Amino acid sequence: MTIQRFFPPRRILMGPGPSDISSDVLQALSRPTVGHLDPLFIGMMDEVKTLLKYAFQTDNDFTIPVSAPGSAGMEACFVNLIEPGDKVIICRNGVFGERMRENAIRSGAQVVLVDDEWGKPVSVEKVAAAFAENSDAKILAFVHAETSTGALSDAQALSKIAKQYNALTIVDAVTSLGGVPLKVDEWQLDAVYSGSQKCLSCVPGLSPITFSPKAIAKIQARTTPVQSWFLDQSLVLGYWSGEGKRSYHHTAPVNSLYALHEALLGLYNEGLENAWQRHADMHQKLKQGLEQLGFKYVVDEECRLPQLNSVYLPEGLDDANTRQHLLNEYNLEVGGGLGALAGKVWRIGLMGYSAKSENVALCLKALQETIGK
Amino acid sequence: MTIQRFFPPRRILMGPGPSDISSDVLQALSRPTVGHLDPLFIGMMDEVKTLLKYAFQTDNDFTIPVSAPGSAGMEACFVNLIEPGDKVIICRNGVFGERMRENAIRSGAQVVLVDDEWGKPVSVEKVAAAFAENSDAKILAFVHAETSTGALSDAQALSKIAKQYNALTIVDAVTSLGGVPLKVDEWQLDAVYSGSQKCLSCVPGLSPITFSPKAIAKIQARTTPVQSWFLDQSLVLGYWSGEGKRSYHHTAPVNSLYALHEALLGLYNEGLENAWQRHADMHQKLKQGLEQLGFKYVVDEECRLPQLNSVYLPEGLDDANTRQHLLNEYNLEVGGGLGALAGKVWRIGLMGYSAKSENVALCLKALQETIGK
Repeated sequence: MTIQRFFPPRRILMGPGPSDISSDVLQALSRPTVGHLDPLFIGMMDEVKTLLKYAFQTDNDFTIPVSAPGSAGMEACFVNLIEPGDKVIICRNGVFGERMRENAIRSGAQVVLVDDEWGKPVSVEKVAAAFAENSDAKILAFVHAETSTGALSDAQALSKIAKQYNALTIVDAVTSLGGVPLKVDEWQLDAVYSGSQKCLSCVPGLSPITFSPKAIAKIQARTTPVQSWFLDQSLVLGYWSGEGKRSYHHTAPVNSLYALHEALLGLYNEGLENAWQRHADMHQKLKQGLEQLGFKYVVDEECRLPQLNSVYLPEGLDDANTRQHLLNEYNLEVGGGLGALAGKVWRIGLMGYSAKSENVALCLKALQETIGK
Repeated sequence: MTIQRFFPPRRILMGPGPSDISSDVLQALSRPTVGHLDPLFIGMMDEVKTLLKYAFQTDNDFTIPVSAPGSAGMEACFVNLIEPGDKVIICRNGVFGERMRENAIRSGAQVVLVDDEWGKPVSVEKVAAAFAENSDAKILAFVHAETSTGALSDAQALSKIAKQYNALTIVDAVTSLGGVPLKVDEWQLDAVYSGSQKCLSCVPGLSPITFSPKAIAKIQARTTPVQSWFLDQSLVLGYWSGEGKRSYHHTAPVNSLYALHEALLGLYNEGLENAWQRHADMHQKLKQGLEQLGFKYVVDEECRLPQLNSVYLPEGLDDANTRQHLLNEYNLEVGGGLGALAGKVWRIGLMGYSAKSENVALCLKALQETIGK
């Protein structure tokens, strides 16, 4: 067996995540590991919570990073909030809405589906109609920013309907957090999960989540145990809680949390509004160039995510070979399509630290040279 | 809000994990992030599998790191292998045996408990008796190296009994992998999970697991879906499988996997037998010193883990204050007791990169000065 050390190239990450990571965050990542119950580390954990509350725009006490990727954050929301038999309305307009359905079913939910075409936002009217027919639904689940299509849904309007029926909301904010406005408290969202590797530009592997007091109340009123031990948030709370002694649940991913602290501090110092504006500005620049090159957007302008540019390939352009060429010749990663859009669409990310002029310029020039225009 | 960058001190980690991490591994951790579907990264994933097979001493094709801590690795074994109603014999001689019971129950198992005193190994006789009374048990689950007590159980003998009854084994090797002999194929173990932050001396957050062909067959014969989407290994397999195109399941923790690759490569280059011997040698040195200072071992010599020294505190020594003093004055972390042993016992780790002469010397001198002998 001859295995050598692995030295990855320095890629420019303009896919659907992970996004580029600043050297500040990579440096923080590699600082010396301390114990997960070290008083200094616990102090840092409190700061991570504070910074996450800012990013989510919430005062929710229960705001922590799950020690696993975004899919585990999604599952944490479903297994904690759903009890077998609960009726759950799930909005499906892409890959992650479908994943929500799978999670809800495995949690024993009775699922009511609201389907929308891929690339369209969730229809507020359809959700209103679904509630009118299912006024006993306990939860509404939807994806704020669909990473598979680049469509942004109106989280505030959807939450408003759920509140009318006294239902809780589970919201996928994996790609939205830090990239477009997301206001957990103002919009009254109840259980929101995200990922570290998108607009936060931290290493992949963590999933920030926040639960409202109403979500916590539903968990506390459960009559059945949460089916997952690892994701049982009433147990996790004992470790992340600010009061008294921390109790051991699992060993926290210490170094990844250093990186998250640094990435969130960067976002705080820039200011959320400035970060949102930067994503919007870079999107405008990229869009102009892409359209000149013959790419057409999948999503209508009014609900288009600036941080995830989903575009149809110009006629005759080969998907896999061209992406491989961009990777080999320019160290540039762009994302392919998922599911029904595979082979037809690219997903060009401008997430977090990747949303900057030099990336836009490189991407457009590399495409220009490759397409031969 | 005034939050500063977090600069952790350089601790010497001699608790129950995380262990000290070499600068090689920390450097690998902070290399530039690439995409989780990047061909170069997928090549590295194949190497991680190969290196893990070596560490586990197995040819099992399904040998991968779960993208979450050891507790998630434990849960992955239980939720995949157990179907509701399956009878499972669980051996409980410490915290992690109890955690196995909780996982089994949440997976719908009918649990038969085999209890042993904390600090004792699992009784092979009791397990034989449990099978004699429950010959329809489908799974035997036990902890190879109990991190809460420092006791090593005879995995080979326990597995042998299970095989007589055609039952599968689930084995917790969180603290044993890399520190003491563990031979998955020779001992015919079926589902084994470990952690990255113990004797592998990688950052916390990953859980290496391996499933035997028999374990895979049981998963493939399931009539009910795995309750966890994130931990459903038939889905995960599509991403880690060596054949054909990798399908997206979740975003792999790219940088942590760089670190695991580097840590496993270090173990491979040292050689497993040499690593086991080093742990044994350092244990002998530490033991002599500890006994001179009045510490008494919790576990009998013949089943004592070299990498986790569980010792009763000498009369009059204050647990929490003394540990805080060691941390403040020497940057030295030793672990406290868990559960019934809290306040009475310390757990002094010699795991992976921490198992070296300079750590033993520092620990003994710091204790000598602190105790005043």
